[in-house]
Amino acid sequence: MSPGALPGFRDFYPTELAERSFIFGGWREVAREYGFVEYDGPPLEPLDLYTKKSGAEIVDQLYNFTDKGKREVALRPEMTPTLARMVAARANAMRKPVRWFSIPQLFRYERAQRGRLREHFQLNMDIVGEADVSADAELIASAIDAMRVFGLTNEDVVARVSDRRLLNALLRGIGVPEQQLGAAYAALDKLDRDPRDVLEQRLETAGVGSEPRARLFELARAAANESDFARLVRDAGASAEYDELRRYLAHTEALGVRDWVRLDLSIVRGLAYYTGIVFELFDAKGELRAICGGGRYDTLLESLGGVSLPALGFGMGDVVLGELLRARGKMPPAAPALDVWVAYGESGSVESAMRVAAKLRARGRSVEYALGHQKLARQLKAAHAAGARQTVVVATPELSDGEAMVRRMADGGEQKVQLDAWIASE
Amino acid sequence: MSPGALPGFRDFYPTELAERSFIFGGWREVAREYGFVEYDGPPLEPLDLYTKKSGAEIVDQLYNFTDKGKREVALRPEMTPTLARMVAARANAMRKPVRWFSIPQLFRYERAQRGRLREHFQLNMDIVGEADVSADAELIASAIDAMRVFGLTNEDVVARVSDRRLLNALLRGIGVPEQQLGAAYAALDKLDRDPRDVLEQRLETAGVGSEPRARLFELARAAANESDFARLVRDAGASAEYDELRRYLAHTEALGVRDWVRLDLSIVRGLAYYTGIVFELFDAKGELRAICGGGRYDTLLESLGGVSLPALGFGMGDVVLGELLRARGKMPPAAPALDVWVAYGESGSVESAMRVAAKLRARGRSVEYALGHQKLARQLKAAHAAGARQTVVVATPELSDGEAMVRRMADGGEQKVQLDAWIASE
Repeated sequence: MSPGALPGFRDFYPTELAERSFIFGGWREVAREYGFVEYDGPPLEPLDLYTKKSGAEIVDQLYNFTDKGKREVALRPEMTPTLARMVAARANAMRKPVRWFSIPQLFRYERAQRGRLREHFQLNMDIVGEADVSADAELIASAIDAMRVFGLTNEDVVARVSDRRLLNALLRGIGVPEQQLGAAYAALDKLDRDPRDVLEQRLETAGVGSEPRARLFELARAAANESDFARLVRDAGASAEYDELRRYLAHTEALGVRDWVRLDLSIVRGLAYYTGIVFELFDAKGELRAICGGGRYDTLLESLGGVSLPALGFGMGDVVLGELLRARGKMPPAAPALDVWVAYGESGSVESAMRVAAKLRARGRSVEYALGHQKLARQLKAAHAAGARQTVVVATPELSDGEAMVRRMADGGEQKVQLDAWIASE
Repeated sequence: MSPGALPGFRDFYPTELAERSFIFGGWREVAREYGFVEYDGPPLEPLDLYTKKSGAEIVDQLYNFTDKGKREVALRPEMTPTLARMVAARANAMRKPVRWFSIPQLFRYERAQRGRLREHFQLNMDIVGEADVSADAELIASAIDAMRVFGLTNEDVVARVSDRRLLNALLRGIGVPEQQLGAAYAALDKLDRDPRDVLEQRLETAGVGSEPRARLFELARAAANESDFARLVRDAGASAEYDELRRYLAHTEALGVRDWVRLDLSIVRGLAYYTGIVFELFDAKGELRAICGGGRYDTLLESLGGVSLPALGFGMGDVVLGELLRARGKMPPAAPALDVWVAYGESGSVESAMRVAAKLRARGRSVEYALGHQKLARQLKAAHAAGARQTVVVATPELSDGEAMVRRMADGGEQKVQLDAWIASE
């Protein structure tokens, strides 16, 4: 946390900004490869954009207030409602499927937890207007490539996949009635965190019978083994839904990401939100929170913005990904970016350096020189401190007119050059 | 304005986002050439960060509220207070001069004016820790190069420069006492907008005598003519201050931007804020609001953050610059960015396209294909609509194993290729 900044908000000093830019750069590269185009919306939106989707409870977690025009507004906690609003306004004119991405900064008023941030940046990639599972495969492939682009492999990251439609069919098949589905989902969601007897107790309280309870736990385990799972699916009469999922998995194979993907029915995510395949990306060691989560939300756009289009998307935050990249040594150190330092000797002045700097900058080089008036020795020290790749010295008594001395800073190698010719070759 | 967005807030659809990225890209290029490194701070800050600098009146123009932790907070209306806070926290550890830039989104609750925005993005470039005028020259050169990078010339944009120290000396020299300097500045500021008799009246009301009033107007005009101006300066006993300004102008010559710069004593800017050279960039036709404004504020950091360092900087908004670029035909149309569309014929399936897409993306190409299941003719239509540079067709009965047909979309030229060899050459 930074002195003077609000708790939960980050200052990005140049080193941290360079890391942020590295992450954003990788994300934009992958989005481009997948044909996604960037959009953005306002960081401040009408409050009801969020309560419409998530109910009034969400307000507790928002930065919301009444503006000077008496409007109820909130800093955006997520991007999907803005996406829904924007797509709805131009849905007819847009080529489908829409492939859009954005990297918004999002805000949540999390109750005080040590080190918990109240803002983060999140890559959002969404496909709007395609109901087929090939879109689901395309989406998860892009999320996985957003790992590969940073040099992460499937030994670093696992993609866990579930399918809301298949799971519903399985749960019904093992005897969980519609009104108990919520309790079943809640138990699945806590499978890794709470002991089995606690979960059993909760399911019993919710009215789930002992036979469906036992089969629920079997079901969650069975996903790891394809033939066990196929039997369960047959028994539950969920073959049609399973065929869809298998087609999806075959597509991930064709897209070269199958070996990152693991079927895991305990991936639940937003209950009221997702309608089909859902997925999360985790670090393989299980030490961090989820890197990414998303899935298909075919009914959400209509409920939010009034346009009925199938859609799917994911969000990937910068914080957990940054932690993972640093932990795996994949975050490059901020390299000195200065191409040339220009220094002048006693036969010149700062303007001697300025003229050279202007010419080099016109050729796209990054250039600094000592502002004010400094002795050459001090200028050379400053060149070192700046991490310049090379220093060009002009206007010393040893140099004839039009000459300069170029020093490679890495090894100190020096070379006398004709200044203009050297600039032209830079 | 966008339907559903708050008044004064912009939605950035892909076309507008591409324009924004074009502007940000140019800005980052110039900042890099000048050795500036990027930083950022939180968009939400403690309210008193702004009232400390601008007084309680500023609150009327802010998006401010009380957060759920009872903190008084505001969406940032400008970046300098954040810069001051961040620099103060690490001032000792930083190499001086600090060359920092940022592109924050800024927020002001402007009272309802048609089409007036309540947010914009602003390039901020600041130099901290250098009192010499060479830093002032370096700064304005970077602002001017932020015009040149977009193809604008000094026929499009004028930089108007004044010097707070020189002006103070001149005003004192022509008989404006200290306590009337504010009134004199206010008159200069309105020189182009209000009729002379109105200004005279105001100056008289403020107690400025008739002799100083007459010389004030003479002074403002005289800046256009160097020998007139030199005489005025001598008469006013402001030669030392004028020498500094002339050194600055000579530096702008060395930096290759002198022919953009015009001395103009009516450039006033924030009264309590600036301490030396100030400048603004305007479109030469005078049709738009200022493109950029800045100057030296040597006492501000201390008054804000407790660190006494000379400093100077400018802010350049994205809105007026965008208007100018569009008016001068310098805003490039959003080009189709898709390298390859992959289509498949009746001997294949969507997975045939997926395999090719994955290979091309691994080589950094941007690739789309038709999701779901579509006839080849429809896929080719989609390739056109997507603006793909080329289309590669696989799995038609006419193609042997490993073959593909590549079509350049610009001229329809087709070529049968060995798929893997073609991918490797892409």
